[in-house]
Amino acid sequence: MAGPPRLRGAWTAKIITLFPEAFPGTLGLSLTGKALDHGLWALETIDLRPFGEGKHKNVDDTPAGGGAGMVLRPDVVGKALDQASIGTPPDRARWPVVYLSPRGRPFSQAMARRWAQGDGITLLCGRFEGVDQRVLDHYAVEEVSLGDFVLTGGEIAAQALIDATVRLIPRVLGNQASTEEESFSDGLLEHPQYTRPAVWEDRAIPDVLLSGHHGKISDWRRETAERLTKERRPDLWRAYCARHGRDPEEDQEL
Amino acid sequence: MAGPPRLRGAWTAKIITLFPEAFPGTLGLSLTGKALDHGLWALETIDLRPFGEGKHKNVDDTPAGGGAGMVLRPDVVGKALDQASIGTPPDRARWPVVYLSPRGRPFSQAMARRWAQGDGITLLCGRFEGVDQRVLDHYAVEEVSLGDFVLTGGEIAAQALIDATVRLIPRVLGNQASTEEESFSDGLLEHPQYTRPAVWEDRAIPDVLLSGHHGKISDWRRETAERLTKERRPDLWRAYCARHGRDPEEDQEL
Repeated sequence: MAGPPRLRGAWTAKIITLFPEAFPGTLGLSLTGKALDHGLWALETIDLRPFGEGKHKNVDDTPAGGGAGMVLRPDVVGKALDQASIGTPPDRARWPVVYLSPRGRPFSQAMARRWAQGDGITLLCGRFEGVDQRVLDHYAVEEVSLGDFVLTGGEIAAQALIDATVRLIPRVLGNQASTEEESFSDGLLEHPQYTRPAVWEDRAIPDVLLSGHHGKISDWRRETAERLTKERRPDLWRAYCARHGRDPEEDQEL
Repeated sequence: MAGPPRLRGAWTAKIITLFPEAFPGTLGLSLTGKALDHGLWALETIDLRPFGEGKHKNVDDTPAGGGAGMVLRPDVVGKALDQASIGTPPDRARWPVVYLSPRGRPFSQAMARRWAQGDGITLLCGRFEGVDQRVLDHYAVEEVSLGDFVLTGGEIAAQALIDATVRLIPRVLGNQASTEEESFSDGLLEHPQYTRPAVWEDRAIPDVLLSGHHGKISDWRRETAERLTKERRPDLWRAYCARHGRDPEEDQEL
């Protein structure tokens, strides 16, 4: 794919898809798009269709054992993975090969951080019922899920994974401090935010935030973040308490 | 936004965003795109920018109490939400108003099913540090998270939520049976899939799938789905066992 200039060694996403026109899509806008234009990362799409079989370039066939839908053929996907592997390190820690599927391990901020430290990634976007299991086994493909829901295809999930990863690459975000403070950096949901005007629809910004007392502001933010996490995400709250030696059932005044 | 014809009463997504050009994006391709072209659902973007303040149409300001990044102003977002609400039912069960944020409740297939039964949805796409809490409170905005990771903005998350929801609207998916069988319909990860060729890279399709015994095939699929779920997603496995009166620690031969 012809595209913008790429800095030598820039982190690269290779995407195997039946819909190459879905890319860069939203990744071409805003901060990720600017970083792409500046060559801070690179995007290559590999159209799965030309690897298909026969005159009609079929990429899929009916599931063995019966059932609805169609399954991507191992030979077809294998050829696309071979092409994607050209010029990439075989070490999966440096260059993960990922199939986007609700069967996979849930994507997380920790995964994005790890991927951002590698050289790049190959993402296989599924469609239909799925992909033949043998090609996943043969190529040591990691299955990753965007969450507990079903999408019509892997393309939107691929964009989410790339966006979350690319913003952690140095120089992509203008303000690195911003990244550090955000949700999940310390395992808590983020505290509420307020900005001007000071009063809106009879609702005022909490006094403490306008007090100028940095210590009190910091305490208030941590307390509200803890309360919010406890209310909305008991799973994250239990993990946070375990890390900080606290009782998740504690009934302290927050 | 001028667009394709819309069937009377078609499910509608209204998206408040600083990047209206991100839509329909990948939603315009494949099954969701065909359904959009046929008017089975509709998409309206509302550009947040014109609601901004002053000559530069500022939509954000610095966080009260200090800190990195910028926060979307409540008055600006409020005006956009007012505009989005025109022609929509005030009942949030029929028309949810959602802010995409890692602080929200995790998106799930159950949420997609519920949303698909409503009349539509309004999605607010954030950027920067977040949005003023008062506008979320005032408009009873529901916070929903795509997962435990941070994106540069809400646009890709909005596409994922819409895609997962739209495919559950009757007639959008050609093969309804396909939806039913998929992952999460019964709380298990999907069994492995295979298709032609029967042998590839010395790897054969499991014999049982070629046996023609429907009962055995069905048993094999359930057993492999259970084993996979137990290995990869202990959380889903425990919930499944609780529903089926089984011991999650059972060491049966699968």
